[in-house]
Amino acid sequence: MGTPAGQRESSEDRSAYTIGVVGVGRMGAAIARRVKEIGFPVLAVQDMDGQAARDLAGEIGATAVETPAAVTERAQYVLTVVSDDAAMRQIFDPQGDAGLLRGAQGRLFINCATVSPEVHVEVERLAAGAGAQTLEACMASSIPQARQGTLYLMCAGKPAAFERARPILEGMSSALRYVGPAGQAATVKALVNMVMNINTAGLAEGLGLGDALGLDLTMLREVFSQTGAASRVLETDGEDMQHREHSVYFSAAHAAKDSGIALALARQAGLRLPLAEATKGQFDRLVAAGKGELDKSAVAELTFPGRG
Amino acid sequence: MGTPAGQRESSEDRSAYTIGVVGVGRMGAAIARRVKEIGFPVLAVQDMDGQAARDLAGEIGATAVETPAAVTERAQYVLTVVSDDAAMRQIFDPQGDAGLLRGAQGRLFINCATVSPEVHVEVERLAAGAGAQTLEACMASSIPQARQGTLYLMCAGKPAAFERARPILEGMSSALRYVGPAGQAATVKALVNMVMNINTAGLAEGLGLGDALGLDLTMLREVFSQTGAASRVLETDGEDMQHREHSVYFSAAHAAKDSGIALALARQAGLRLPLAEATKGQFDRLVAAGKGELDKSAVAELTFPGRG
Repeated sequence: MGTPAGQRESSEDRSAYTIGVVGVGRMGAAIARRVKEIGFPVLAVQDMDGQAARDLAGEIGATAVETPAAVTERAQYVLTVVSDDAAMRQIFDPQGDAGLLRGAQGRLFINCATVSPEVHVEVERLAAGAGAQTLEACMASSIPQARQGTLYLMCAGKPAAFERARPILEGMSSALRYVGPAGQAATVKALVNMVMNINTAGLAEGLGLGDALGLDLTMLREVFSQTGAASRVLETDGEDMQHREHSVYFSAAHAAKDSGIALALARQAGLRLPLAEATKGQFDRLVAAGKGELDKSAVAELTFPGRG
Repeated sequence: MGTPAGQRESSEDRSAYTIGVVGVGRMGAAIARRVKEIGFPVLAVQDMDGQAARDLAGEIGATAVETPAAVTERAQYVLTVVSDDAAMRQIFDPQGDAGLLRGAQGRLFINCATVSPEVHVEVERLAAGAGAQTLEACMASSIPQARQGTLYLMCAGKPAAFERARPILEGMSSALRYVGPAGQAATVKALVNMVMNINTAGLAEGLGLGDALGLDLTMLREVFSQTGAASRVLETDGEDMQHREHSVYFSAAHAAKDSGIALALARQAGLRLPLAEATKGQFDRLVAAGKGELDKSAVAELTFPGRG
């Protein structure tokens, strides 16, 4: 057996990397547990949901702090895993006394949330003004991979920031890729998720129609897997759609958000993308039906007979 | 090396299977060449396009005949590879003097075209009335696989007809599957192609948007292949979309037809399938633009900037 990625360096090398985490939902918490487990000192965690921060802090021996600024104060490397553009802009507000940029000289912010490309460009500029660096670290995988340090991680920003962050990134990822300047990783991620969401919603239609026609869905999935209908989402979501198992790995609400980011880019580029639009419509419908916190595979709720 | 499928039996075993082919477009001709090559006597070929039939007949040493009835007269096993429901109904017209069912006692018709499920049910009943058998043999692969005898072949009809056809089917296929009664294979095929077409049109949107945003498409395809955006059509069509290489394997017109079959089944089942509808719209648009005879990958012509 080979040495697992992220275990190549001893934990002593890692003790110099003081880490803080802002945003400890399921994904942020999974990343925090992972980097702690392999020897990085995770000193401070913060979240809008103070209880979530305190629970995680207790579990991994960190300090739960009240503000992003307090994380910057305690850690040289700050991982941000917040929910959307507005949250990113708020924590990087250069006027905010409680924000990340207060006393940020020398810090490196590693931004893991899926937000719009222009937000990454914006925070890189703001951080530079405060004497700090930023790096996009876009995850094209989900919570179990974050927990196990096997994320597919696409990074963008200044090459120097990427090299500086590399030991931490290698602890998080089994497939690390530098794709270009700030915003580029978010752009690629938006395209990945746009196509993934289309394939997911399309698979839900195929299996839903198969169910309506009385076909054996296990047979149908097997045929799909051997033909032009094969896809990664068939492997990850097909059986879950059949058995109505929608525990969240990647939520329908996130799918709707990511497809929206891609469609905004398309509009700016003057392109019309009918499938991406139809897919966004399906995930929006799911959110409107109160099912946004189910896994994206729950889009099958809209296409299987009798599930609506 | 293992023995290639379809070469397990000697050509002497095969000489008893007199074969005729009705419909010798690219696919029918590829199948005829394959079964001839591995030792089945292909005695008669027929097509609406008499020249195509004569050319193929000259090539493989068969007789080009004028009518389907003349094929039935010369062969015990008749492979039909016609273009649509109307063509199937015409060649199986029980009133037609020139049709396949004239003097059809004891014949086995192996129907390879992608037509509506109900047409398979109908021709099975009509053939039974003439003392003949039918079998659906739906291909979930394309011309190169037909030529090489490596089709993924889904069969449906009476089990006895499947067993009787098996030696021929094994010569055509590397993956043979009996899925159920008449119509069932066409149903599964319609679903396979519906999902394949959705994935294809969705991939074209992802790559088209990537191109519009100035991304390196070779990088983008590599990222897609490692993530939730991965699919079989990414492997088969992604590079062709990038390089605008649309030599036909599976035409856009066929894609439009097959998505239409699936949508008709969905309507009968009372399901609304927004992605399948959007996909049908794209392929219809391509056909309307005079590009229906390009490969289905040409759907990228609609989504890449400057190609429209």
